[in-house]
Amino acid sequence: MTKDGYAQVKLISKPENMLKTIYTACRTCYSSDSPLNIYECDNAQDNEKMLKLISRVISSGHYSTIEHIQVSFAISNISRACSHQLVRHRHMSFSQKSQRYVKEKEQFEYLIPDSIAENQELKEKFENFMGEISAFYLELTEKGIPAEDARAVLPNAASTSMVASLNLREMIHLANLRLCTRAQKEIRILVKRMCDALTEEEPWLKDYLVPKCERLGYCDEDKSCGRKQVKGN
Amino acid sequence: MTKDGYAQVKLISKPENMLKTIYTACRTCYSSDSPLNIYECDNAQDNEKMLKLISRVISSGHYSTIEHIQVSFAISNISRACSHQLVRHRHMSFSQKSQRYVKEKEQFEYLIPDSIAENQELKEKFENFMGEISAFYLELTEKGIPAEDARAVLPNAASTSMVASLNLREMIHLANLRLCTRAQKEIRILVKRMCDALTEEEPWLKDYLVPKCERLGYCDEDKSCGRKQVKGN
Amino acid sequence: MTKDGYAQVKLISKPENMLKTIYTACRTCYSSDSPLNIYECDNAQDNEKMLKLISRVISSGHYSTIEHIQVSFAISNISRACSHQLVRHRHMSFSQKSQRYVKEKEQFEYLIPDSIAENQELKEKFENFMGEISAFYLELTEKGIPAEDARAVLPNAASTSMVASLNLREMIHLANLRLCTRAQKEIRILVKRMCDALTEEEPWLKDYLVPKCERLGYCDEDKSCGRKQVKGN
Amino acid sequence: MTKDGYAQVKLISKPENMLKTIYTACRTCYSSDSPLNIYECDNAQDNEKMLKLISRVISSGHYSTIEHIQVSFAISNISRACSHQLVRHRHMSFSQKSQRYVKEKEQFEYLIPDSIAENQELKEKFENFMGEISAFYLELTEKGIPAEDARAVLPNAASTSMVASLNLREMIHLANLRLCTRAQKEIRILVKRMCDALTEEEPWLKDYLVPKCERLGYCDEDKSCGRKQVKGN
Repeated sequence: MTKDGYAQVKLISKPENMLKTIYTACRTCYSSDSPLNIYECDNAQDNEKMLKLISRVISSGHYSTIEHIQVSFAISNISRACSHQLVRHRHMSFSQKSQRYVKEKEQFEYLIPDSIAENQELKEKFENFMGEISAFYLELTEKGIPAEDARAVLPNAASTSMVASLNLREMIHLANLRLCTRAQKEIRILVKRMCDALTEEEPWLKDYLVPKCERLGYCDEDKSCGRKQVKGN
Repeated sequence: MTKDGYAQVKLISKPENMLKTIYTACRTCYSSDSPLNIYECDNAQDNEKMLKLISRVISSGHYSTIEHIQVSFAISNISRACSHQLVRHRHMSFSQKSQRYVKEKEQFEYLIPDSIAENQELKEKFENFMGEISAFYLELTEKGIPAEDARAVLPNAASTSMVASLNLREMIHLANLRLCTRAQKEIRILVKRMCDALTEEEPWLKDYLVPKCERLGYCDEDKSCGRKQVKGN
Repeated sequence: MTKDGYAQVKLISKPENMLKTIYTACRTCYSSDSPLNIYECDNAQDNEKMLKLISRVISSGHYSTIEHIQVSFAISNISRACSHQLVRHRHMSFSQKSQRYVKEKEQFEYLIPDSIAENQELKEKFENFMGEISAFYLELTEKGIPAEDARAVLPNAASTSMVASLNLREMIHLANLRLCTRAQKEIRILVKRMCDALTEEEPWLKDYLVPKCERLGYCDEDKSCGRKQVKGN
Repeated sequence: MTKDGYAQVKLISKPENMLKTIYTACRTCYSSDSPLNIYECDNAQDNEKMLKLISRVISSGHYSTIEHIQVSFAISNISRACSHQLVRHRHMSFSQKSQRYVKEKEQFEYLIPDSIAENQELKEKFENFMGEISAFYLELTEKGIPAEDARAVLPNAASTSMVASLNLREMIHLANLRLCTRAQKEIRILVKRMCDALTEEEPWLKDYLVPKCERLGYCDEDKSCGRKQVKGN
């Protein structure tokens, strides 16, 4: 488990030549030169020149050029409530730990929401309750109930893990939606950690991995959190 | 709740002119005539002629022609375990009851897996346990914990509902995967009911809404349920 | 051919109960009631009430709720240049007339771009040239070259036809991009006609089927056409 | 241009740790261990062990696990007829040379279909004809017609280039469809070269990058090319 009880995230795979691939894609659209020549030209050795073009293309909303880059994350210690939200991003690819095929042998791991953890009395009750659920789950599986049915008693708090992959276009979309304060805290922290893991290696992406109001220039929700004004106000 | 404790499913929307639209799509690919003329031609009044062509096209695996038809289902009384499986079908569209925004006011509804329900002692324990979870959930919300956090204690068994839409290509894919005995019983029944609701109005689809082994002619899983032999055996 | 030489478009299929289906989807997310009850409730008989909710949901960018509605168009008299642009919309479904399987028997149909048609001399030359291409195509096929190879000489101007289907979320996206003056004139007119065909039956969609600058409140291209200012200017 | 007149293809990007990423994804589904631990375990250093698992998972049709790997190709010297076919693969990402923004300055490049090239007389006529088209195109652009309109006269034979990316699931699907003899020769060669470029670096993929009949065990087209029998025959 992580120290603060939230998601553990590690970037486990990204393509070689990220900038060069995007740069080649952008220039192929507007050049009489072949993509192979562009890929091997002098400019494609110059990160600064490449970034200047790429940033102009992304700012104009021509996101298809960054679909060429896909990244993969190893994610653990998120709740099943959180994973149910994450897998709704249909442009992502997931391989998630199965509650059907992986039988819990002892107390299952779980996450305590902050609002409960901050109240000592409720926190203890919550932890005890997780123990009771675990005991009932183990009784069920010992009595021959298959894991896929015994899991009916497992709570949304139960932790899960997955490998998740997405291209940069979806990564920006994910950040836009899930870094917004309307998103639930757990997924907000998860997505923030995905962004951080990526920008640590690719710092040029920082400007794009932001809540949607930063991209739009205004808030398009009913009520604003204060970061940007609601459109038209 | 349904009598047998499984999903309630109703087909709430389908396009006008289903056969005519598919027929027009199929013929447009191979005809010098315009789609509008095809749509209004005599053959497009003759269900039998249209079905003959459509069945040949589907059998050849040219599924893109049936993407033109999308259908919508109102689904209720499925468990959150089941909905987590269903939303993994990324070509489908979903609007699901939110546990963040809909606060439970009394005992939440839930499903009991058959393997537990068949054991009277375990069934009672299960039902009592659902009562305890409900009590704790209600205590949490009464003490000011927001629904989105209190739901951490709600179990996979808790029921949910949704509107789900998909085109006929994905409908066939869904049936192929989820009518297979490898799929968990609850989603197998759900998908069977979706198929039944659709074929009641469109009986010609019956031949295609089958487990994948019927389509392939063999079982491609590690072990067969006996319906078809494993490939190569 | 159409009078003005541009696309012929007809809406050939849309779901029954369009508003009711969207309304049910929107309310299902926030209601303790089942989608089936929502679908059959009094409000779902009242177009005005439904539209009020739907418009609020769309304005907040919650577009997944309108994916439940898919519409189909019969499209003819568009150029292959235009169809190559249109099929880049990957959330759409297409059944297009095949140049491999449909052999031209006489002068193929084609579109003359306005900038050429406006110059009488160039227009005549263009038309004569289309005749020459046709003659060479017919010579090739008569000499036994299969249609799929003979078509190598056919120009981008050659007309094609298709059945195209898309959900309302993609319809709004298509309008946002292709009604923008950056889009080429032919596809702009095609998409305008698709929008018109749809809003004739569903006038409430008019506010959403607009160029992207209307949705954003600013122009996100390098240069503005004057309709809205470039962001930050 | 390539020596044989067909596509030039180069694999320009693939993820680091391809096998390890897929292996981690496969094992995450069935393991109580975290994906990070799996990624760093001893087995994930052993290509043979990883391949054994991966091949079993792919054979069972659990393709979602290989979506985590995306590869990118620089493609040039394909015809616009071919690119119009390729972009119909909606799970792929493309950045294609624009005929709107890239003006031809001299004779455009083009491909001659084999059936025409094999006939010396037709070949010469074809080449002369490409010269005439080029002359007319250049006349149009010199007289002020924008490239996006002048291209109306350019033929399907005109060559184009692109950067194309796809994940391994789609790569297998692409091979299944486009290595089939029903596919047109040009795209068959293109896709063969994409497969070859990939399997040169990842030879373990050879068994999967095959025509669909190899995967199915039978031909599902109306008529077989002889490689496999039609289903049911």
